[in-house]
Order: sequence, then structure tokens, then C-alpha cells
Amino acid sequence: MSPTPSWVKKLKPSGPQGSELLAAERKKSSIDVGQLSEFLFTEEKLQRRNEILDILKSEKVFDKSQNYFAGRMDRFETALARAKKLQNVRVENKWNEDDMYIATELISEPGPYGLHEGMFLVTLRDQGTPEQHKLFLDKAVKYEIIGCYAQTELGHGSNVRGLETTATWNAEDKTFVIHSPHLTASKWWIGSLGKTANYAVVMAQLIIKGKGYGPHPFVVQVRDLKTHEPLENVHVGDIGPKFGYNTMDNGFLLFNKVKIPHVNMLAKFSHVDPNTGKYSRPISPSLIYGTLTWIRSNIVLSAGQVLARGVTIAVRYCAVRRQFADRDAPDSETSETPVLNYTMVQIRLLTLLASTFALHFTGNGMMKLYRANQKMMNEKGAGREKDSKRGAGPEETHAGSDLLADLHATSCGLKSLASSTAAEGLEVCRRACGGHGYSSFSGVGSYYADYLPTTTWEGDNYMLTQQVARYLLKSARSVLKGDKPTNDTTTILTNFKNRAEMGAAFDILGSDEDLVAAFAWRAAFLTFEALKHRDEQKKAWNDLLVDFYRLSKAHSQFIVVKNFHDALTDSTTTQSLNSDTVALMHKLFRLNALHTLETESSEFYASGAATVRQIQLARTTAIMKLLEEIRPHAVRLVDAWAFSDWQMDSSLGREDGNVYEDMFYRASELNPLNKITIDPYPGSEVLFKGQRSKL
Amino acid sequence: MSPTPSWVKKLKPSGPQGSELLAAERKKSSIDVGQLSEFLFTEEKLQRRNEILDILKSEKVFDKSQNYFAGRMDRFETALARAKKLQNVRVENKWNEDDMYIATELISEPGPYGLHEGMFLVTLRDQGTPEQHKLFLDKAVKYEIIGCYAQTELGHGSNVRGLETTATWNAEDKTFVIHSPHLTASKWWIGSLGKTANYAVVMAQLIIKGKGYGPHPFVVQVRDLKTHEPLENVHVGDIGPKFGYNTMDNGFLLFNKVKIPHVNMLAKFSHVDPNTGKYSRPISPSLIYGTLTWIRSNIVLSAGQVLARGVTIAVRYCAVRRQFADRDAPDSETSETPVLNYTMVQIRLLTLLASTFALHFTGNGMMKLYRANQKMMNEKGAGREKDSKRGAGPEETHAGSDLLADLHATSCGLKSLASSTAAEGLEVCRRACGGHGYSSFSGVGSYYADYLPTTTWEGDNYMLTQQVARYLLKSARSVLKGDKPTNDTTTILTNFKNRAEMGAAFDILGSDEDLVAAFAWRAAFLTFEALKHRDEQKKAWNDLLVDFYRLSKAHSQFIVVKNFHDALTDSTTTQSLNSDTVALMHKLFRLNALHTLETESSEFYASGAATVRQIQLARTTAIMKLLEEIRPHAVRLVDAWAFSDWQMDSSLGREDGNVYEDMFYRASELNPLNKITIDPYPGSEVLFKGQRSKL
Repeated sequence: MSPTPSWVKKLKPSGPQGSELLAAERKKSSIDVGQLSEFLFTEEKLQRRNEILDILKSEKVFDKSQNYFAGRMDRFETALARAKKLQNVRVENKWNEDDMYIATELISEPGPYGLHEGMFLVTLRDQGTPEQHKLFLDKAVKYEIIGCYAQTELGHGSNVRGLETTATWNAEDKTFVIHSPHLTASKWWIGSLGKTANYAVVMAQLIIKGKGYGPHPFVVQVRDLKTHEPLENVHVGDIGPKFGYNTMDNGFLLFNKVKIPHVNMLAKFSHVDPNTGKYSRPISPSLIYGTLTWIRSNIVLSAGQVLARGVTIAVRYCAVRRQFADRDAPDSETSETPVLNYTMVQIRLLTLLASTFALHFTGNGMMKLYRANQKMMNEKGAGREKDSKRGAGPEETHAGSDLLADLHATSCGLKSLASSTAAEGLEVCRRACGGHGYSSFSGVGSYYADYLPTTTWEGDNYMLTQQVARYLLKSARSVLKGDKPTNDTTTILTNFKNRAEMGAAFDILGSDEDLVAAFAWRAAFLTFEALKHRDEQKKAWNDLLVDFYRLSKAHSQFIVVKNFHDALTDSTTTQSLNSDTVALMHKLFRLNALHTLETESSEFYASGAATVRQIQLARTTAIMKLLEEIRPHAVRLVDAWAFSDWQMDSSLGREDGNVYEDMFYRASELNPLNKITIDPYPGSEVLFKGQRSKL
Repeated sequence: MSPTPSWVKKLKPSGPQGSELLAAERKKSSIDVGQLSEFLFTEEKLQRRNEILDILKSEKVFDKSQNYFAGRMDRFETALARAKKLQNVRVENKWNEDDMYIATELISEPGPYGLHEGMFLVTLRDQGTPEQHKLFLDKAVKYEIIGCYAQTELGHGSNVRGLETTATWNAEDKTFVIHSPHLTASKWWIGSLGKTANYAVVMAQLIIKGKGYGPHPFVVQVRDLKTHEPLENVHVGDIGPKFGYNTMDNGFLLFNKVKIPHVNMLAKFSHVDPNTGKYSRPISPSLIYGTLTWIRSNIVLSAGQVLARGVTIAVRYCAVRRQFADRDAPDSETSETPVLNYTMVQIRLLTLLASTFALHFTGNGMMKLYRANQKMMNEKGAGREKDSKRGAGPEETHAGSDLLADLHATSCGLKSLASSTAAEGLEVCRRACGGHGYSSFSGVGSYYADYLPTTTWEGDNYMLTQQVARYLLKSARSVLKGDKPTNDTTTILTNFKNRAEMGAAFDILGSDEDLVAAFAWRAAFLTFEALKHRDEQKKAWNDLLVDFYRLSKAHSQFIVVKNFHDALTDSTTTQSLNSDTVALMHKLFRLNALHTLETESSEFYASGAATVRQIQLARTTAIMKLLEEIRPHAVRLVDAWAFSDWQMDSSLGREDGNVYEDMFYRASELNPLNKITIDPYPGSEVLFKGQRSKL
């Protein structure tokens, strides 16, 4: 294709330029963006992010220009090159874990070493004995072996107890035989396994003398360390393309009676005596419990930022994109309105903008709860059981402890709510960008596609709600018995019970505290309703799943508004932010809470937490007024989330607003499809004329 | 990579095989699947579909095995090859338009000739004079020239009047000069243009002697017919990768003062006199109106089938996928439950299944209304205006005619509702398939991604609701004035007005007619509320956009339940289907209506169309009961939608239920990523070892 003609290069967009429009937007508000960014991230982290960004930008392999154009083979090859380079850069610069996390976020794609770092190393470290650390961990840290964590199977994901892969103890030669008895036993979805790993921690059903002991972790080599070909009796490979996440080689894995030595069963917490074949019960059955809680807490923590990326793109673009003149304005035929001025766009984007902050504060609250829990358990661990030769480690009390149970249930419910909010919010952002939102250059579609698995893994978002419900029912039973409240959940349930004959009167539009209390009331009401259905009407568990889903959502939504509200009244906040920013945050809180309430209004009606009239006013007046008040600050608010253009790789979300020039440049200059000419005629068998560039 | 070991080939899934599970499912119900299929499609069409399918299957180029694996360049090359082959097959077999439509549906991907067929030919035909037919249409029909329809620009999509491309009349040499004054004037998103077309019908602002006459269609050659290179002063190419739809070459197009002869302005309805330069106003300003209505009606008509494809996959898979034993069952530790038994899955999938039928009947109703309208206008056209030398054509009365206005508004509202329902429903289906739903082999993700633009094009789904609201407000004003009702809309508004002092009492759980009436009531209530806000409170149009969105949705939801209900009581239905099928359809109607009502419950409360108690009962009892009653028929119901495995290309949705074998086969045998070996070590610069297969 001929180079771009000079007459094309001279063209500019019509009307006010995107840069002018964004500058005008930023002038509308006086919110201190830098201050808000520091409040969200800390000055230190922002600085570190910029330093790391500079390093990444200086390495050609991380350049994103061809990301959107490349097919899966090329994407994976590039991801592998990036993973290697990143590992080398990290060692050179002595990056710690936080630095790696920042770098990975900036690169914004999962990579082939992801599960080696994220799960293989962690599992070896946490579940291996010192001897096993020497055998496996030390090599893994140096990338002399590269591993993954093989739990999920073709036939089993959620029900871990149903895993089919077996590990059978052979007392004669003191080995375990790893075997896949059925096709559905094949490990599946295993990150870093498809092409990269030569080792795996395999979760398999431990069998000793015909008796099953449940899933346990076994270290198994799967590929030759030199040739990288699968070992004998191992069938391993990539599971194929996915809706997103295609820079990761998720793999499958089948075993045909593969023997491994006794020492390969990770033995910090469970153990088979090599001489007697006796199995020792784990000291901490809830150890995995704790890891899941950690992972879910992190999902909650990052959800706000994930959503904020999409909101940044959509808000900036909708401030630049002008379409139609204002219908009610007289002489405005030539002047079109930025679509962000349309209330139908605002009610989609500004409510999501409010959600980013709600999730941010909730994530912080979640991590606070997690750390408090860890601290308490470490202190309790000092008086642990006598079997101390197993080595030190965080002992966890019986999972029934109030704090742990509350943390666990909270993390389940919030993981479900937060990741659904973020994922679905990203799609709303993409669609709000109209036609151009569908282009890969919007940066939202692929980011959404890569994030989507978060709604399914680490606990499917629907399935998790059962765990929350179980906990809430248990709490309700204890409250009915008269037990004193010991945490937020039992407190709101007790309050509801005490007022059972009086009902509620919440000034949801006049008082923020009442607004939070209304959410508490609704959650408590649904809890006692569910309890009635289960304990009095004896309904089957399966018949109550939808109730449980709603109940969990209600409880989680209460936690979100409570966390947001608490954060705003906390001195850390009021001391770190200017008063106008705090006032704006209060509006965002109100918008988030009222919009959620209005979306879930039937439950607020039914529980008596709000009246018909209040909800109507929320819908038609309060929310619309908040949109109007927040509107002038929208661009500055997304600026505060401090996404670099390099990270977002989005034409629509550029900080300078030069949307059209960027889209055109990518289409006209970077697009490999424009470097070939085709033969269009049906009569000709020629498709692409001449040489095809390798892609 | 080594060939698949024989021990792997021997493996089967554990437990009851997918085929056994689906057979058991089909045994649960005695619904006559073949009869229902014929009712949905007609026996004739089903037969034709199978004939065409056989032809497609016999041509290697249409084989889908590598579809999911290929990158964009390969996908496009293959799509081009398919387009050519399809054109040749069509000519050989003398296929008509319906046959082509069937073939395209079966192939299930947009192709590079799509807009040549769909828009270029249609526009030449409908808007060209006999002379222009000779010059352009005759060649286009024979594919001697290949075209597209270039309307949308980088800066303008929805606001067609704002298009920036100009066509300036030059009286001296009797030409039009086509020009792109700004970058944002670049045509963008133009299907078939990016690589394929050598001609375009360009919508450009007609300018004569400095005065603008609005957008008009001009035939412009853009590429050389032999070399296929862009002509001088034309910059044209592909706009880059998209979220989906990547087998289509959507293109951009810029002009630098390109001259075209007078005859290139399509002149059937508007005309510039070549001697005087005088512009003649179109006879039918609503001609484009009519085309849009036709396109939207078709979107409504196909929405049910689109959704049904996802529901077919999800229902079959969820009947095969087993996970966890029933919590309340005693001795079921080894026997896991098909996830379709979980009410939380049913409330997502069976409600969507009900929607497929609701949309199907609504689509039929929509087309009936369209055809009645066409008939009426053709009859009116006999007494058309005297300017008959323009040639025959369907004259349309003033757009204010009640029937046309109702059709237009209905098509807008239903296009919005139906395409959103289908698109969002597909994602619900994908997510209901859990982890494996994320694999490309599920067949849902890519289908959803390709369908998604339907929510934005032909009228953005949010923007369209303004047109519906405008019509509803107008109708309400006429009802308040006392005008007699002339269609469904004015009828329900009149009824509401007459009962303004009595309110409503609808037995929504006991009477299907009352259920429909409750939807009508709610829509009428919202209409009069909106009217109050606009006419009495004088609220700005922009401030009412959210109200208008809700109003339009309410009106469209009423039309859907009405169409579904009417279809079930129509003798065509009751005579074509067994009574047990009709009874099941009534349950599906009720599920669709009650679930919609329950989702939108706050408006039903607020309008008095339903009581708190009724809604509660709908939620907790009626809907759950309907799920239970419909559940045994789920698989047969999706079977009735008659999607072939070949068309769906889905491991999860296979008719025989052999989900796991199919997934494994694709991953292990077809996956090109498994034909290479990598070097995994960070210390090595080698990425892919050895020869890389071309992909």
C-alpha cells in the first residue's frame, strides 16, 4: 500500500480539538488531582510506578503498538519474550514483589511466567518442608525449573473434592503413582502449563491401601529440562484460544501411571510416613481457607482500579465526542454537545465513577480486616499444638471463630460483588463509547475480555453467595438464640430483631447514616426471610439459591456503602484531602448508595427500609441532582486514578484527548492488513496479492 | 509435538457420559420437537436449510476447524476465500436471496462481500434511475464492480445531518467534487470497504452555490478495477481490529477533491438539474425512514434466534456438566448433580429460554405490522404526486400517519429492547457455562462479540428510546385532548386516563390477560408521568433522557408480552401445535412476563400495576414453580430451535453431549500452538524452537 499522502497528513479533526475540550473540562473543576492521586495510591507508589514505567518504555519488547493486531501465536511469542525480559530486568534492578506487581499492571497482559510466580513458588514456599525447599524451591526461584499449580480438571472446578487425578501410595518402592483414570481427570485451565512449565504442583486424591484421603499437593516433573518435550507417560499442552487471556498458555495435563518419590508430596501440613504408610492429619485444615481469603481480598482491592481504567477511557472520550446539538437550545445548529452532557450517559458513567471509589475504600477495608485477622491468628499461634517439629507457621483456629468466619464470608460476598461490578461496568463503559467503543483501539474490549475470568475463578460469583448465606443464616440463628453481637453482621441482625415490632424510618435522602442503616436493614430483613424459608418452612437448599444470591448481594452492598461512608468520616481522609474534595467524595458516596438502592428498590420497599415516595424522589430528583453536581469534576476525578497512556493503550482514553488522530494513525500506519492488496473478484482464486507480511 | 499417545486415546470421561445425560434429558419430556421446529421455521425452510448445509459441508473452504485459532490476517483471508466460493456456489445453484441468507447464517461470520450485497446493490436499486442502473447496478450484480455504503464518519454516526464529507456542484464541468475537509470527515466503519470494494455509495453534504441541501448519495469509484490500488486523491484502508466482527474489512475513506460526473448522484428521489443547477426536493423524505424501519424490524425478527443459539449451548452443557452432590440428599456423595438442576442456573437460563420465544413471536408480530404498513402505503401510492417521471416507487405518506408512526416507534423501541436482550443474554449464557464458557470452543464468546455491534448500529439502543418517547408523548397529548384511540398505544393510554381516579387491580398471578394489562398500565403510567415532567414542569429534554429510556423499555416490554400472549391464543398456533406444547408455551409466557415484571418491579409498584404482595409471590413462588415445571422440557425446547452442530461450532453445545471429548480433541489435535515447542528459560533468547508453522 502506498505511503500516506501528504494531503491526508495535513488533516485535522473539525471543530474544537479533543485537547481543547479536555482542557476546558479540567478548567471546570478545581479538585486537586495530585492530592487525590496520592491519597489513593501514596506518593511513594506513584513515584515508583513512574520509575518502573520509564524502564519498561526503554525496552523495545514491551512496545504495545502491535498488540491489537497480532494473532494468538504472535501474541504468545511476544508475551514469552516479555516474560523473559521482565525477569532479567527484575534481577538487574533488584525489584521486589511490589515492583513486579506494578510492572505487570503496566504491561497489562497475563504472561507465561504468571503462575510460576503467583502459585508455584508460593505453594512450594508455604507447603514445603525445608528439605523440599532445597529440592524444588531453590531451583524454582532461580528459574532452573519453571512450574505451575495444577488443580482444576476438565470435569471439576468448583468441587475440589471431586478431583479425579489420583496419587496412590506404593509402600514397596516408596513412591506415589500419579494417574488420570478418565479423560475428565485431565488438568485443564492450568496457567503457565500449556507451553512453559516443566514442573507442576499437582492436586491429586491421595490413596493409601485403597482408602481416599482427599486432594493433596504433589510435585511432578512434566517436561524434559533440556528438550522441553513432555516426559514419557505425560500428555501436556495448551487448551486452545479463549475469549481473552490469550497471552497466557493455559494447559491440560494427563498422567499414565507416573511414579514420583515420596519426598515429592509437599509435607509441611500433611504427611505420609514412608515406613508405615500412615497418614497424618493436617494441623490446619483451614490453611487453604486462608489462601483463598487472601486471593479474594486482593480481587476486592483491585476491583476499583480495574473499573477505573474503563471509566477513565469512557469519561475522557465522552467529553471529547460531540454529537447533536442540544434539543432545547435555540441557535445551536452548528455546535454539537459532548455526549457526556447527556444525562443518559451520565447515569451510566458517573455512577460507575462513584463505584470506583466505593470499591477502593471497600478494598482497603477488606485488607484491613484481613491483616487484623492475620495478626490475631499469629498471636494465637504462639499457643499452638505441640507437634512443633512440623515447623512454624500461622496456625489458624477452628474456622468457627467469629472474626475468621466474618472475614471469610465477607471476602466471598465482596469478591462476588466487586468483580461482577468491575466486569459488567467495563462493558457499560465500552458501550457508552458508541461505535468507536467496538474498535480494539478503545482499549476497553480486550481489557474487559482479560478481566472476565475473575467472575468465575477463585469461586464462581454465583456459587460463592451460598457460603455467604450459610454464614448469615448461622449468624441469624445465634441472634435469635440471644447471643450478644460480636461483629457488624450480628450487630445489624440484632438491631433488626430488636425493632421487629416497630419497623424502620430511615431518612435516606437527608442523612448519610440513615442511608447506610437502610442498607443494613434490607440485608437483615432478607436474612431473616431466608431463615424463615429454611428453618421454619424447611425449604430445600436448592430452592433457596436465588434467595441466597440476593441475600449475599444485599449484605455485600451494605458493606460497600458502610466502608465508603466510614472512610469519608475517618480522620485519615479528612486530613489528607481538601475540604472540597471531601465534599465531592460525599456526593459520590450518595450517588453510589442511592443509585444502588434505586436499582434494588423492590427489596428496599419490601423490607420497609425505604418508602415508595423516597425511592421515587431518589430516582427523579436526588440522583439527577448529584449527576449534575458531579459532572464538572468528572475528568479531574478520572485523572486522579493516574493511568498512563502507555498502560491503557487506548485512542479514546488519551490524556491529551487527541482521539481521532490516534485512531487514524493506528488504522492507517500500524495496521498490517493495510500492507497487503487483495484481489476482490469472485472469479479469481487469488486472495492476497504479492507477498504477505508475516503476522 | 509427539502424536497423541495411545493411552490417551483410550480415555473416556468419568461417570454417566454426556450422551447418556442428554438422552435422559430428552426422555423427561414428550414435547414433539419436530412439530415445534416446523412451527418456528416452517418445514420448507428447515428442509432448505439442510440442503444448503449439505452443500456448504461439501466445500473444504467452509470448514470451521481452524476458525478459533486463526489470527485476523488469516481469518480475513479465509473469509475472502469463502465469500468468493459462496458467490460461485450461489450462481451455480441459482440461489435466491433467502438461500443466501440461510447460507450466511450457517457460515456464521460476516464476510467481505456483505455490504456489497446488503447495502450497495440495494441502494443502487432503490435510489438509482434506469440510466444509473445500467451504469452501475448491472455491473455490480455481476460483481464487475464491488461496492459498499459509506455513510458513517469518524466524527459522526448517530447525527447523520452532521456529516462532514462534501459534494459540491460544479456548474462549469457538470461535476460534483467530493471532498473531506477535516480528518473527522473520514468515512469510518464502512463494511466491505477496508480491502474489498472498488466503489462506494458515499453519503455527502450536497452543496450548490454555497448552500447546503443535506446528505445525498453519490457513486464514487475508490480503487482501480485492475490493480485494486486506491485511485489518486483517495485514501482508503481497513480501520483495524475490533472486539469481534474481524472477518469483515470495515474501512476508512478520505477524498481530496475528487471529481465525479453529474450522473453519479443517485437521482430517483432527489435531483440536481445539470443545466440550471436547481435542486429538486425528494418526493419521499421518509424513504430512508422506511429502510431503517425495515432493518430494525429484521433485527427484532432475528433476535430470538440469536439468543436461542446461546441458550441451546448453555442448556445442553448445563445438563451434561455435573458438580457437587445435592446438599440435602443423604447418600449422594459419589453422584454429582447436573448444574441445570440448580435453581440459580435455571433462573438465568430458563428465563432466557422463555425470552427466545417471546422475541420470536414479537418479531413475527413486528414483520406483520411492517407488511401491513407497506401494503397500505402501496395502495396509497396509487394516488401519488404528479411528478411521475421520477419513476415508480413506494410513496410514503407524511410520517405523521398513525400507522407509520406507530410502526416507526415500535421498531425503534423493539430494536433497542430485543438486541439488548439478545446480546446481554448471550453473555449470561456464556457465564452460566462456568470455566469452560471462557474457552473459544464454547462457541458463545465469539458469537456474542460478533453480535454486539447490533446494540449500537442502526440506532444506538439508548438513543433510539428518545424517538419512542417522543411518539409516546405525542400520543398522550392527543389522548388528553380527547382524540379517539387508533392503535394499541393510544388504546392503553386512553384506558389509563379513563381509570385515572380508580387505579388498577390486576390479578397478575391468576390471569394472563391481567398480566398483559399490568404491563400496559405501567407503560401508560410512565408516559403520563413523563408528559407531566415535560409539559407541566417544563423540564429540559436532556433532564428527561433517563425517564425516556425507562418509558421506552416499558412500552416495548408491553409489546413483547402482548405479542407472546396474542400468538398463543391465535388459532394458527393452537392448530399447529399439540396441546401439551401450547400449555408449555403458556408457562414460558408466564415465566417471561413475571420475571420481567419482577426485574422491573419498582415501576409496577409505583404505578399501582401490582402490589407488594403480588410481586413477592411472583418472586418467591410463581417463578420458582414455573422453573420447576419447565425444567424437564428444557433440552427438547432448545432442540426445537434446530441449530446444527456445524453451524454452532461449539464443544459445549453439541447435540450428542460429547462435550469433553470434543474440547479435548480441539485442544490436543487441532491447536497449532501445540505444534511448536518453546524454550522456557529467561536466560535464553530463543522463544519458539525450530520451524514455526504458518498461522
